[in-house]
Amino acid sequence: MNTPPSLERLVQELSRLPGVGQKTAQRLAFSILRDDPAKVRSLAEAIVAVKTKIRFCEECFGYAEEPRCPVCGDGRRDASVICVVEQPNDIYVVERSGVFRGRYHVLMGTISPLDGIGPDQLKVRELLARVAREPVQEVILATNPSIPGEATALHLSRVLAGKVPKITRLARGMPVGANLEYTDDVTLNQAFSGRQNFG
Amino acid sequence: MNTPPSLERLVQELSRLPGVGQKTAQRLAFSILRDDPAKVRSLAEAIVAVKTKIRFCEECFGYAEEPRCPVCGDGRRDASVICVVEQPNDIYVVERSGVFRGRYHVLMGTISPLDGIGPDQLKVRELLARVAREPVQEVILATNPSIPGEATALHLSRVLAGKVPKITRLARGMPVGANLEYTDDVTLNQAFSGRQNFG
Repeated sequence: MNTPPSLERLVQELSRLPGVGQKTAQRLAFSILRDDPAKVRSLAEAIVAVKTKIRFCEECFGYAEEPRCPVCGDGRRDASVICVVEQPNDIYVVERSGVFRGRYHVLMGTISPLDGIGPDQLKVRELLARVAREPVQEVILATNPSIPGEATALHLSRVLAGKVPKITRLARGMPVGANLEYTDDVTLNQAFSGRQNFG
Repeated sequence: MNTPPSLERLVQELSRLPGVGQKTAQRLAFSILRDDPAKVRSLAEAIVAVKTKIRFCEECFGYAEEPRCPVCGDGRRDASVICVVEQPNDIYVVERSGVFRGRYHVLMGTISPLDGIGPDQLKVRELLARVAREPVQEVILATNPSIPGEATALHLSRVLAGKVPKITRLARGMPVGANLEYTDDVTLNQAFSGRQNFG
């Protein structure tokens, strides 16, 4: 391809991003090239700033710019419920839904003995310390409904037992809009075992 | 959303790019956040560099870092054929296909009287100068098969008449893999009128 080197380099850099192929990277590069110089500088600055400014909240290990993240720093959030998630990103999925008004705790992964990741490599000790220190009434285990997520939830439910009045796990079952015909056996099994009274 | 400001800002900046919605921007931002600091700096630098280094080729008005673009600077390219396109990006679409070994000329738009864009606002004079100066045997009009693209091609064919031995237009018809049932009337019309002997 007879592309000028700096354009070619930008296409390569962009195509390293997840879900960005060669063609999308080219489309983005052309758009950046046609954009206002001030806007382009602003984008580049935002990219650098996010790396230099963001750290982990010392309370919940979500993303933060201050020592505490915006959720932990918000006095209106319900301190009696902690939602435990695997990764910092998971917080924003729950926040976007607007369904939860409590606080979070990020584990920074899941228990995975094959990769040498046990409870000590995760933020489990910090969770137990929070439960001991704060007036926590409920811990919601929101790790993924995958094998490592389930194993981690099971471990947490054991170490938290007796230390917090209520331990819950997000419901598993058929997602809204799903079709019985195409539902996998494990999900169907969970949808049956978790069935609720109706009407 | 309780997102740290610098993360929120990056999401906003990314979502201004074409085809990048809020969710994609968030996914890209998280990936940048998790990425190696060196790689992130490299991406930011590439974005700034493309804006500062790229200019228009003084010959064909494609993207270039030197006074002349890589195509115009390549002595092996056939100087007797000029492919006229609307935008610098169009060059890379043709280059990617590998079908063309001549040179290009970018018009920098199409004739659009309603927007006050006539031949004088486009690089038409420069095209005529090239045709007069270089040993051009054929001009391929590769403006888009749209109303402004067709109007521009028609205008060019008139001003070039007699000044170059051969003026051609890219074939219009049914794209490969298309289905007769779903082909629009205008395309079908052009496919019929441009039908070729077969076998």
